[in-house]
Amino acid sequence: MGLQLDGLDALLSPKSIAVLGASADPSKIGGRPLTYLRANGFAGEIYPINPRHAQIQGMTAYASIQDVPDAIDLALVSVPGPAVVDSVRACADRGVRVATIFSAGFAETSPDGAGAQEEIAGISRDSGMRVLGPNCLGSANRRAGVSASFAASEGRPRPEGNLDGVALVSQSGAIAAYCVLAGLDRGISFDPWISTGNECDIQLADCLAHLALDDDVRVVAAYLEGCRDGDGLREALALAHERGKPVILLKSGRSTVGARAAASHTASMVGSAETYEALMRQYNVCVADSLDDLMDLSYGIGFGPVPSGSRTGLVTSSGGVGILMADVAESVALDVPPLPETAQLALREVWPSAGVENPIDTTAQLVNDQRLLAQFLVTALGQGGFDSMIVFLSYIGLIPSWSHAAVDALREARAAFPESQISLAMLTTPEVRASIESMGIRVFDDPTTAVRVMGRSVANRQGFQSPAAPPPTTVASSSTITGSGTLSEVDSAAVLSAAGVPVAPGVHVHSAEEAARAAADFGSAVVVKVVSQDLPHKSEAGGVRLDVTTPEAAARAYDEVTRAAARYAPDARLDGALVSPMLTGGLETILGVVSDPVFGPVVMFGLGGVYVEVLRDASYRLAPFTVTEATSMIQEIRGYGLLSGARGKPARDVASLATALSRLSVFADEHRHDLDSIDLNPFLVMPEGAGSVAVDALVVRRSMDETSRPSADD
Amino acid sequence: MGLQLDGLDALLSPKSIAVLGASADPSKIGGRPLTYLRANGFAGEIYPINPRHAQIQGMTAYASIQDVPDAIDLALVSVPGPAVVDSVRACADRGVRVATIFSAGFAETSPDGAGAQEEIAGISRDSGMRVLGPNCLGSANRRAGVSASFAASEGRPRPEGNLDGVALVSQSGAIAAYCVLAGLDRGISFDPWISTGNECDIQLADCLAHLALDDDVRVVAAYLEGCRDGDGLREALALAHERGKPVILLKSGRSTVGARAAASHTASMVGSAETYEALMRQYNVCVADSLDDLMDLSYGIGFGPVPSGSRTGLVTSSGGVGILMADVAESVALDVPPLPETAQLALREVWPSAGVENPIDTTAQLVNDQRLLAQFLVTALGQGGFDSMIVFLSYIGLIPSWSHAAVDALREARAAFPESQISLAMLTTPEVRASIESMGIRVFDDPTTAVRVMGRSVANRQGFQSPAAPPPTTVASSSTITGSGTLSEVDSAAVLSAAGVPVAPGVHVHSAEEAARAAADFGSAVVVKVVSQDLPHKSEAGGVRLDVTTPEAAARAYDEVTRAAARYAPDARLDGALVSPMLTGGLETILGVVSDPVFGPVVMFGLGGVYVEVLRDASYRLAPFTVTEATSMIQEIRGYGLLSGARGKPARDVASLATALSRLSVFADEHRHDLDSIDLNPFLVMPEGAGSVAVDALVVRRSMDETSRPSADD
Repeated sequence: MGLQLDGLDALLSPKSIAVLGASADPSKIGGRPLTYLRANGFAGEIYPINPRHAQIQGMTAYASIQDVPDAIDLALVSVPGPAVVDSVRACADRGVRVATIFSAGFAETSPDGAGAQEEIAGISRDSGMRVLGPNCLGSANRRAGVSASFAASEGRPRPEGNLDGVALVSQSGAIAAYCVLAGLDRGISFDPWISTGNECDIQLADCLAHLALDDDVRVVAAYLEGCRDGDGLREALALAHERGKPVILLKSGRSTVGARAAASHTASMVGSAETYEALMRQYNVCVADSLDDLMDLSYGIGFGPVPSGSRTGLVTSSGGVGILMADVAESVALDVPPLPETAQLALREVWPSAGVENPIDTTAQLVNDQRLLAQFLVTALGQGGFDSMIVFLSYIGLIPSWSHAAVDALREARAAFPESQISLAMLTTPEVRASIESMGIRVFDDPTTAVRVMGRSVANRQGFQSPAAPPPTTVASSSTITGSGTLSEVDSAAVLSAAGVPVAPGVHVHSAEEAARAAADFGSAVVVKVVSQDLPHKSEAGGVRLDVTTPEAAARAYDEVTRAAARYAPDARLDGALVSPMLTGGLETILGVVSDPVFGPVVMFGLGGVYVEVLRDASYRLAPFTVTEATSMIQEIRGYGLLSGARGKPARDVASLATALSRLSVFADEHRHDLDSIDLNPFLVMPEGAGSVAVDALVVRRSMDETSRPSADD
Repeated sequence: MGLQLDGLDALLSPKSIAVLGASADPSKIGGRPLTYLRANGFAGEIYPINPRHAQIQGMTAYASIQDVPDAIDLALVSVPGPAVVDSVRACADRGVRVATIFSAGFAETSPDGAGAQEEIAGISRDSGMRVLGPNCLGSANRRAGVSASFAASEGRPRPEGNLDGVALVSQSGAIAAYCVLAGLDRGISFDPWISTGNECDIQLADCLAHLALDDDVRVVAAYLEGCRDGDGLREALALAHERGKPVILLKSGRSTVGARAAASHTASMVGSAETYEALMRQYNVCVADSLDDLMDLSYGIGFGPVPSGSRTGLVTSSGGVGILMADVAESVALDVPPLPETAQLALREVWPSAGVENPIDTTAQLVNDQRLLAQFLVTALGQGGFDSMIVFLSYIGLIPSWSHAAVDALREARAAFPESQISLAMLTTPEVRASIESMGIRVFDDPTTAVRVMGRSVANRQGFQSPAAPPPTTVASSSTITGSGTLSEVDSAAVLSAAGVPVAPGVHVHSAEEAARAAADFGSAVVVKVVSQDLPHKSEAGGVRLDVTTPEAAARAYDEVTRAAARYAPDARLDGALVSPMLTGGLETILGVVSDPVFGPVVMFGLGGVYVEVLRDASYRLAPFTVTEATSMIQEIRGYGLLSGARGKPARDVASLATALSRLSVFADEHRHDLDSIDLNPFLVMPEGAGSVAVDALVVRRSMDETSRPSADD
């Protein structure tokens, strides 16, 4: 599938809008858009369509969309369910560019509804007319006076001075409307906003990409429940990343963690929640965890430039709050470095009881001494070398005499340092808040929220410094994996080695004599393992002998493992045995790949055994990815200390591990069409400089049933 | 030290109040309490003290507190720093019961200030007059018209219908005032509230205990920075627990994690953050992580009865929000069970497009169908078998026509189910909010906050079902630990075994012959370890031989380990060797005790080796504690699956482990005066039913320097 941006300009900036099912009653769903469009100054043509009235809300009405004399960019379909398909067909016939369907009762309701929705999708595909919805709340672009929605938010004015440039796209109409309305009181006018509903044609990803390309949009906030086109979403996020445009995403459905049936061991541990988490990391998406958080982050990141560095100065009127703020600063990776000695001395001279290190505490004295706050702010801004400053002034904004002094102090500081990044946390009135925001200072109520949002903003900005993940391979590699179903260990090792993933060397032997010769050639202790594509778990079958030290023992081991395997699974096709050197001294890790139905291959990394199985200490990335990304993937696990050499353990060869992970991801991406899973367990990471190597490798191709099912890359 | 509650009744419900440094200017610190007390209807006597005026704010003023004719319960000291000590002495001489000191410039400022504060503490001790502060904002008890503070919050009326019965105690005055003011707009009137400032006499714990005993107080919210008297705080929390009174605590200073110098291995891993976390778990304290959270939890838990069960029904006007709410429900251990089939069918009959399982989604249809919401609510309440219901109605509260219908539906549901626990999340006006709250329904803006608070509330209520931790042993055990400094392994094992903590049996031998005889007696493989109180790390000294299989080998091992130890540390006092059976088959864990300077012995539990060292996967409890508490301590670690038998591993003898932990805690508590640390590493947990046993045990007594330092139990 991929992105389809055609027509989205007509959705957001139409020159003409028809309303099918237009109502004279401004409280009805078919009446509200007419009222809103005129109230909000839409300058284009409006065509109410209703066969029973000649005039609607003072405008000429048309019996049918065929009767409209001029071109129609956008049609809003607000007719009863059974009439929707015909209305949509009429729109397509009339050459409408986009139809937004408010009506519900489609795929979300019943199989019949799903059928009708599929019919609408077909009309869209055949005619090229884009369709938003059905079962959506529409969209708005108030910059152009467009309120193509029946949401109550469109009946409200946008408060003067509210933040603009923050767009919102949501699969849920209720969440879009809630955020737009709640945002108005929190200082954000989300605009444009789009609700995508059932997404029979226009996807959230299409809107996201369109908004990423809109220069008037600085930040895109999004609410996502699920996604059918993984490649499209990745393309959209890659586009936003390329343009340095922050995306703040609230994803629901974390608790419905993958109940996917999966053959391989690794698969049972990759749920869709992990896949989405990987996606967000790889494209530097700022993850919100509640509606409040979505709005807070939208405000903080959308407000204006974000600091590039993490050194922050905390200035408070309360030592206690300073400690709380420092706690949170650490948790969001902000540094709170001390003021230089000279600046500390200067502040102590101003007020001996002050806290002057950082957090900097004016104490309640700032109420008695009108000059104190300005002196503290100017000193900290001028001498602290901070990338940002976060100020807490308790409830001063509620007390008129105090708030004037505080606003004056902030203004003085701002005049001296026009470019400094400042956030303020203070209980305040809307008027005081607006006057402070007009100085380019963010205003929050809660001090720890101010700190958290600053930290998340800085991290998001810093995330744009590394390149985005490469897009997935949309054209499949011409090479296919030899064999089918579960590959034998020999074949698995061969394809992975060819892809540059180190797998322990082995000699494939077919007799006890060959086994003895191979052991003699290695000249060291060996492992003898039975080879069979029908026996993925060879140890259980008695098909493995470790630490075989002589050629004679190797010959015996050959006979034993082949006999044991035959006893264990009489129908398994046996293909001799593999003789490989016995490896020791490595740290056991697990590398795995599973195939996500939406996003294709997902690579997992973790420490061996109980670390992954019991502690669930693993990290994930969508394939393909670079060595740099693999390195951060390795550093992300809680047990990273075991690799980096914590507590006197030897440091491990993380570089070779990262290279192997990246190569594995490239291989998985190239074979995304016919790959089901890969399991490298254990993958031994040797001491620094000594490389790393898989001891066991298992590649599983998709069965025919699976390759024929619809998938992301069809 | 311990709790001292004397005089706190006079602080909160004084019959007479003197104000030292009373000012005619109602905006000055010495003027405001006079204004507030009269505005808020204080019915007792008010005595302004000021030598320069005969009348202040229309009241008779006195030149000195000696001139006041009647008894004085509470004196507010608002005089310049240098005059404070004399004023306090005058108060004590005059028989004042409590003096609150607003003035700053004491221990928080300079050594001189600390000296003055110590002088005030001495006056308090000698006279019995309680002192609040210095450097505090005072207190208020508006039920009695008492505003003994200069906080701006006292100049505000308490909105009608606001929640009462939620008290607040804070070490920071700014945080107290911020919460009181912010609370007014969020529907909570914190009352009484107390700010304790520098705590030269009255501690936060004293206030907490007093409020726990006050039947009009249903919930206590608290802000804590640190604590000098651990026993006092534990007593206060135990008292609150005993009375089933929820305590919601915001603790700052998490980021300044313990840089305590400590000798033992375990000590390096117990920071004060872990100690406080243990404290809060053991006394069922509800932990807030921001000011917003403190206020949300106070509102939710203080509102009224809290559900005892975790089955919750989610009713929303938006499927998307329902998913978000279900995500959060899982994260706070709320169950979201499906409605019974018959109820599902009934709802589907009302509205075929509805989501009827749980979350239950009315869809936006509730706007078109005025009866829909009531029908859904009544069906869910009547047939769902839920312990609570959380309803999301988007921004309906902002749209007058819709909100009337919603309020009617809620009223109908409430009439049918007067006892049901219901929370509502909806954007609303203050008037609509108040009318819904008056039905006994909690109102939040953000839907996930509503769910989170419900989950935390239920967990808090359930936490009262297990008994609180026993109080620490305040009278020291008459027994003392034999020996001094680091005990030898033989002595360590002896004292711990006597306390019921299983330590591997061992025979203390003093010659190669004795070693051989001991090995022969055991009749199995043994371990031979050198014994010396000067060699805590015997392996490094070459002082350990494992898996010694014959008496002859044991004799050789004796000679080897004693010689190696003598070479390694020529000055170490050697005391023969220990011969013990070689134990195998156990899961390695670590049990440890460190002595916290404030709270006394803290017990740590974790899995052996890297689990604790690298993954920091450990849990903590203050000694002493029960076997039940030990069990939850064991279940708390991330790697618990290794003990419970996850993924095909054998289940371990958790019962014997829990018993050992509890006995260790009792031993540590009994010896809190002379114990520094204990380290049982490894402590082997055998398969279920086979017990558990320490292989190595190390007990360290406090050095003389340490036992003489001031400690919690002095």
